[in-house]
Amino acid sequence: MVEPVDVRTARPFGGPPPEVAAAVAPDPAADAVLAELVTALPADRVLIDPDTVAPYVRDEAEWAEHGRPVAVVRPHSTAEVAAVVAACARHRVAVVTRGAGTGLSGGANAIDGCVLLCTERMREIVEINPGERLAVVQPGVVNDDLRAAVAGHGLWYPPDPASAPWSTIGGNVATNAGGLCCVKYGVTRDYVLALEVVTATGEVVRVGRRTAKGVAGYDLAGLMVGSEGTLGVITEITVKLRPLRTTPPRTVVGFFDTLAECGAAVAAVTARGLQPAAFELIDRHCLRAVNEWKRAGLPEGAAALLLAQTDLPEPAASAEAEAIHAEFVAAGAKDAMMSTDPVEAEALFDARRLAYPAIEQRGDAVLTEDVCLPRGRLAEMLEQVEDIATRHRTLIANLAHAGDGNLHPLIIVPHGDEEAKARAQAAFDEIVAAAIALGGTVTGEHGVGLLKRSGMRRELGPGALAMQRAIKAALDPYDILNPGKVIG
Amino acid sequence: MVEPVDVRTARPFGGPPPEVAAAVAPDPAADAVLAELVTALPADRVLIDPDTVAPYVRDEAEWAEHGRPVAVVRPHSTAEVAAVVAACARHRVAVVTRGAGTGLSGGANAIDGCVLLCTERMREIVEINPGERLAVVQPGVVNDDLRAAVAGHGLWYPPDPASAPWSTIGGNVATNAGGLCCVKYGVTRDYVLALEVVTATGEVVRVGRRTAKGVAGYDLAGLMVGSEGTLGVITEITVKLRPLRTTPPRTVVGFFDTLAECGAAVAAVTARGLQPAAFELIDRHCLRAVNEWKRAGLPEGAAALLLAQTDLPEPAASAEAEAIHAEFVAAGAKDAMMSTDPVEAEALFDARRLAYPAIEQRGDAVLTEDVCLPRGRLAEMLEQVEDIATRHRTLIANLAHAGDGNLHPLIIVPHGDEEAKARAQAAFDEIVAAAIALGGTVTGEHGVGLLKRSGMRRELGPGALAMQRAIKAALDPYDILNPGKVIG
Repeated sequence: MVEPVDVRTARPFGGPPPEVAAAVAPDPAADAVLAELVTALPADRVLIDPDTVAPYVRDEAEWAEHGRPVAVVRPHSTAEVAAVVAACARHRVAVVTRGAGTGLSGGANAIDGCVLLCTERMREIVEINPGERLAVVQPGVVNDDLRAAVAGHGLWYPPDPASAPWSTIGGNVATNAGGLCCVKYGVTRDYVLALEVVTATGEVVRVGRRTAKGVAGYDLAGLMVGSEGTLGVITEITVKLRPLRTTPPRTVVGFFDTLAECGAAVAAVTARGLQPAAFELIDRHCLRAVNEWKRAGLPEGAAALLLAQTDLPEPAASAEAEAIHAEFVAAGAKDAMMSTDPVEAEALFDARRLAYPAIEQRGDAVLTEDVCLPRGRLAEMLEQVEDIATRHRTLIANLAHAGDGNLHPLIIVPHGDEEAKARAQAAFDEIVAAAIALGGTVTGEHGVGLLKRSGMRRELGPGALAMQRAIKAALDPYDILNPGKVIG
Repeated sequence: MVEPVDVRTARPFGGPPPEVAAAVAPDPAADAVLAELVTALPADRVLIDPDTVAPYVRDEAEWAEHGRPVAVVRPHSTAEVAAVVAACARHRVAVVTRGAGTGLSGGANAIDGCVLLCTERMREIVEINPGERLAVVQPGVVNDDLRAAVAGHGLWYPPDPASAPWSTIGGNVATNAGGLCCVKYGVTRDYVLALEVVTATGEVVRVGRRTAKGVAGYDLAGLMVGSEGTLGVITEITVKLRPLRTTPPRTVVGFFDTLAECGAAVAAVTARGLQPAAFELIDRHCLRAVNEWKRAGLPEGAAALLLAQTDLPEPAASAEAEAIHAEFVAAGAKDAMMSTDPVEAEALFDARRLAYPAIEQRGDAVLTEDVCLPRGRLAEMLEQVEDIATRHRTLIANLAHAGDGNLHPLIIVPHGDEEAKARAQAAFDEIVAAAIALGGTVTGEHGVGLLKRSGMRRELGPGALAMQRAIKAALDPYDILNPGKVIG
């Protein structure tokens, strides 16, 4: 990290290249906010040097546009967040909040002239309470760090997005992050008990509860989850925990020659009432990428593999694994096996985890889709994706949280090929349209951000959109909280 | 049910007793709505005869005030609901929605001059979908009827409020109903995927999704759950289902001499990471009432009994039951046993289910509390309730969903004893204050309605209340949806 410059003397963006400076219109409101923040906060909180600011201006949705913030602010406390938002509210300057920036929809991307509020310095685990099975954390705590900390108390925080080693709980809450085990254990929303939130006027408000149940008023905590920083800035999170799982998981793997067989297997496992704790699909493009990168030796002949894990206590786990295996075989798996070896099982799940970085490290641009289908339509959707890829002459690899019907087509384009990029964009739009036509949603777990705004408008009716806008206007009347994102 | 009168010729309220008629001020807006409804809807939809209307004007919170509706409307379809709400919106007449009227907070009580919209004729199970593990129902479907219908498909709808034989899914959703098994399986909100809602302007809107996951916009379905008819009228509900449980449950029972020991046992079971599928407390007053009513032969010497059930697959169930039993003994249970006999287990849970009606059938007035505490404070709360009962010379029996910390003190008062009623009211207020002081909530599962409005205001901070009011104003700008309830 570049040393922060002394903002008390520096000009916003220090000395940017002339052509960039010219692109930024003078903004007296933003200048006034900056002056206030510099006076109100310790010097290290406010970054304005362009090189220092640059890493903060966007998330991992590389195709989404982003603007230039007037400053990046890294508060250490709720009071500092409140001071930032209050200053922005007074001057009607936008506040864009971000955690680790691992988002995939552009939700945390800077807007021109905004204050970019980064929670990375708010990383205290405030409380771990085994008696009440809850933890209280600041928003900048990293997902895996929370999981490790509570494991020491015999507890488990289930939501496990692929970004868990880097992403923050605040970002997970803002996007209602999913992950592998949510097929059995639910998504982030299912684990948020209470939130401390700074409102659009800079007021500090507590919503939700510490008790197992509670119905005192509207579910404001639930409303904040997934609102992507457009309704408030989350400054503290109380999460529900589960007892730590102690049985080693059993893994079942099946290789399928066709996507239709793959889809039939998913449907059959669900219809039989089985409840795998993870149920993933990896297609041949992803397998090949993992092999190329890691010499993993995974069979590439199949159209896709399914990977299921059961975490029941024995002997129920064996029975469930056998039942899943039987359904894989019945659906036409050309190769299906059960693994009792945790090392082997972990290697298979590593292939799942490595698939996305394996695609990414090839150096191409990746446009990540996130549609979620009724489980029974997954195979149909996969076939439509193949057809879309062919018609638009675009390579599309597929990962799916199959048990949830949550599909991530990865649209791959060589960097700098503008024509290919246009074809990829067309494919993206067609995938969104196909998902809606099949009764699905345009985003299963990544959020709306910038990339899914038009898709969301197509998915929801005018009545639901009007309700969303009414809520946004009610809680953020000056439209300063992450404006232009989600419903903005 | 009294035959509906012909509303096309009858006067509102037909021929009420003169003193009652005098209490109702003339209301041209209500008369105009009534005239519209009579024209727009089939004759049997609109009830105005006072004897026919009377059973609809209140729920089971007998201490809560209620007004007189201009009519009861029982629509058969979403279109009819929309017509009712649109007419009310045009004339700014209040709409109070009710299902079976089993609520315990006055949330469905009529307001003077309102249209009372009853969903009891909308009782179609529209779809049961084993592949997607969901069902679609109209709001008037009775909870137990849904459970029975999906069981035929190998599926399970977990939320099981004590009112399940009578209460409707619409009412359960409106109050976010809990029940016995939510200690392990969650409350109604955890099972609502999507809703069709008629908004305050009479528009039909769909919120939520049919997919396992989805983050396209704010969680409007979750916001509607528990909003007690103040943000919209729910006309269709899509619920998530689980595979039907097939293992017979194992039951553990423990009798404790002191409430402190009882609380210690609850805390120890939770801290050990055990996850009973039901974990209930019944105090000696309730045991005595069940014995008096049903000659159940339950031991009355104990301060309370704890009743836990495990539904893991064997042999894990036996291990969990033994672990619970061990914690009961370690906490000081004078008698603790495990039951492998489903008949015996069912008899014990019958005692739990019969406790409330056993208290009620004695002919006294019962004021039902519903505080929810951090689990670790349950014993302390129970001791405070004993102290409050003594100081206010009031009999207070206690039932609790112990594993959730959700306590139902039943404040018992002879009918017609106004002085005793005043003491009971004082006890009620002190219990609410004590729950807040111990970090709890004023309502765990019954809702705010009328009885918990002041308690909710004490529990939530001004910021959270302002957010609630802003949302109410945004979605119901003319304040016609169940005005005066919850935040109104």
